[in-house]
Amino acid sequence: MTLQKHVSLNINVRGLGESPTLAINERVKLLQSQGRKIYNFGLGQSPFPVPAPVVEALRLHAHEKDYLPVKGLPALKDAVAGFHRQKDLVEANADCVLVGPGSKELMFLLQLVFYGEIIVPTPSWVSYVPQAKILGKRVSLIHTSFEDKWHINADRLSEHLEVEQDLYRPRLLVLNYPGNPDGLTYTANELKEIAAVAREYEIILLSDEIYGQLHHQGSHVSVARFYPEGTIISSGLSKWCGAGGWRLGTFTFPRSLDWLMEAMAAVASETYTSVSAPIQYAAVEAFRGSMAIERYLWHARRILSTLGQKCYRILADAGVRIHPPEGAFYMFPDFSPFGKSLAKRNIKNSATLCERLLQETGVAMLPGRVFERPCEELTARISYINFAGARSLAASETIAMHLELPEEFIHAHCEETLEATQTLADWLTG
Amino acid sequence: MTLQKHVSLNINVRGLGESPTLAINERVKLLQSQGRKIYNFGLGQSPFPVPAPVVEALRLHAHEKDYLPVKGLPALKDAVAGFHRQKDLVEANADCVLVGPGSKELMFLLQLVFYGEIIVPTPSWVSYVPQAKILGKRVSLIHTSFEDKWHINADRLSEHLEVEQDLYRPRLLVLNYPGNPDGLTYTANELKEIAAVAREYEIILLSDEIYGQLHHQGSHVSVARFYPEGTIISSGLSKWCGAGGWRLGTFTFPRSLDWLMEAMAAVASETYTSVSAPIQYAAVEAFRGSMAIERYLWHARRILSTLGQKCYRILADAGVRIHPPEGAFYMFPDFSPFGKSLAKRNIKNSATLCERLLQETGVAMLPGRVFERPCEELTARISYINFAGARSLAASETIAMHLELPEEFIHAHCEETLEATQTLADWLTG
Repeated sequence: MTLQKHVSLNINVRGLGESPTLAINERVKLLQSQGRKIYNFGLGQSPFPVPAPVVEALRLHAHEKDYLPVKGLPALKDAVAGFHRQKDLVEANADCVLVGPGSKELMFLLQLVFYGEIIVPTPSWVSYVPQAKILGKRVSLIHTSFEDKWHINADRLSEHLEVEQDLYRPRLLVLNYPGNPDGLTYTANELKEIAAVAREYEIILLSDEIYGQLHHQGSHVSVARFYPEGTIISSGLSKWCGAGGWRLGTFTFPRSLDWLMEAMAAVASETYTSVSAPIQYAAVEAFRGSMAIERYLWHARRILSTLGQKCYRILADAGVRIHPPEGAFYMFPDFSPFGKSLAKRNIKNSATLCERLLQETGVAMLPGRVFERPCEELTARISYINFAGARSLAASETIAMHLELPEEFIHAHCEETLEATQTLADWLTG
Repeated sequence: MTLQKHVSLNINVRGLGESPTLAINERVKLLQSQGRKIYNFGLGQSPFPVPAPVVEALRLHAHEKDYLPVKGLPALKDAVAGFHRQKDLVEANADCVLVGPGSKELMFLLQLVFYGEIIVPTPSWVSYVPQAKILGKRVSLIHTSFEDKWHINADRLSEHLEVEQDLYRPRLLVLNYPGNPDGLTYTANELKEIAAVAREYEIILLSDEIYGQLHHQGSHVSVARFYPEGTIISSGLSKWCGAGGWRLGTFTFPRSLDWLMEAMAAVASETYTSVSAPIQYAAVEAFRGSMAIERYLWHARRILSTLGQKCYRILADAGVRIHPPEGAFYMFPDFSPFGKSLAKRNIKNSATLCERLLQETGVAMLPGRVFERPCEELTARISYINFAGARSLAASETIAMHLELPEEFIHAHCEETLEATQTLADWLTG
């Protein structure tokens, strides 16, 4: 039997490795199991538990076994539409919600069904571009810069669109804010200007707002407010609800894009069928919201904001080019001020930087290149999430809401995160 | 805003409707909500509840929120490998198990990554061919016949393979037994002969055995016993465990096909990421098995077998060409003996047959054409599952295991199924 000799694979998937965020996590676990002390700045997973009422709802619905409608449980679609109406002040209709096993899967289906150019600003979330490769599609990247806070603006977008001399080219632009890997967001005004350009060119926006509720000041604004007819809002349970492992994402469409939703639902019916029924019932509780969930979010934000600022300060003081974080639990530092000294240590690109840092100090982070940045750019993503989320939430609950979290709080509950940040700073300057 | 005018869809998905088994269910619900009495013979969902210990395991693990490894929770992969070793007497290794959100999704990934010809005998499960269309792939169909019990055999397979004059063409053959839509299976000897041909041509087999544990006599045999090095076994919770809505399927590979598994896992990491964590923890309980689960299966089989034979008898007596069911909960009757009288009623293909039957009697079944049979062939799938599964299981538990289920049992617990079958027979002969 020689089947193994006849490796017969789609050329689009040959050499495709595991998604880097997942791979780094499995590598960290392996190193830890070998007894090494590892600081995991690699995985983009919320440190907080799923809110108790949502877990309770899953328990209550554990017996639900029927296949649910492809687009989602009607009560959940209602709750998701209500969530966006209330949180984002946008029109959102339950009929225009699509529920999938993670927003990543929905993004893949969108890329599969949409025929046109997909535009992705970089640094970009790790999966947009590999998905396009799997499907054999072309993606246009717009490289942003540190000075632009790693985000595009209306001028950059216009420039990019004008080049093609093809006014009504079908296009889809992905925006992600607060952003992974940068932890930064747009102002309402910036979004208004981007929306105006998008409307002019009739571009579809995929607005990935999965970190919206983790805006550190709780003041997330959706671009859908300024371009409702052309914006798909992406959300899910993974980040603000701490339920990454549950696998539930949502896309909310305007009526004018229902043809995209219907095509995605048709493909869904031939692939994942529908999202796990007990999970969908539990998600109703999450999207409907409650005082308990608002408190949870409020404390999560206070912790992330305080810790993020602290880590930022350590790195900025050490000389790293870095912006103070505004949302989510990421930072995207630029180590170019250390370019010369790193080059002397034979570190000339982001992959080597991360590999050597991991080997020499045990700090695991993801290199800028996996976020579609040029290989030789000395950038990386830090996920400042390696602390005990449940314990820190409980501790934050005991501190009055008008107070800032004291210095001791971070030392008591997030010491390892600080230690990792300091280790990184020392490694750079040492 | 004219975005709706610029419908820009991948040509492979234009006009793609919702998968027929899901669509019929949504249609039945709509008709029922309009107050019509409908007999749902359309959906392929187990009538039985998820076994109690498995539901309990989901409750216990409701708080699990971490992203699990792409290929699956290690304990689950262990349990799945153990399941196949014990039930199917095949070598199966935990390292060679891939867990996905339904075996349908896994099949899609397999079609996506495999470069080669995919061979599907018909009548075939509804999603194999649409998946290929979505991916723009070519599928070769082998049409079987009523006389062949709707299954292929070694001679038919050889004939098909010889035609191409391309000995080592990469090929993958899908086998599904007990079969959807036919409810029939292969003997060990038939499988042995098919295995020999597959080995000769180095074809990969995807052996869809999701109904294996619902073989009515409990004597399912896997083709992997005869062709271990080239067979992928597909299974999952949806059918034998009654948990279709939970969405968990498994592929178990031989070592020699690990390159296919790795490529699928890489794509999985860029699409669904991993299967819902609480569901995977619960599935460990299901695949590990227990006396409680064996009892559940035993009673489920006794009920399905008794009811299936009864329905078969009604239709056979009415003059329908039909085989006595051997597994699962399907039959695939051939109504051609009524061809002339149906033609007089202007019914000349399977779609019209099913539509008119639904309109005139309220019996919903799926036409042969959705199983890739010729349009004008008067065949259809019956799912004899519209009875109260939990109540009938409980009732079966009170009847000694050495006894057959009495006539009254079926009348007391599955009356609607009998009524629907009789209605169908009357409609044909009336």
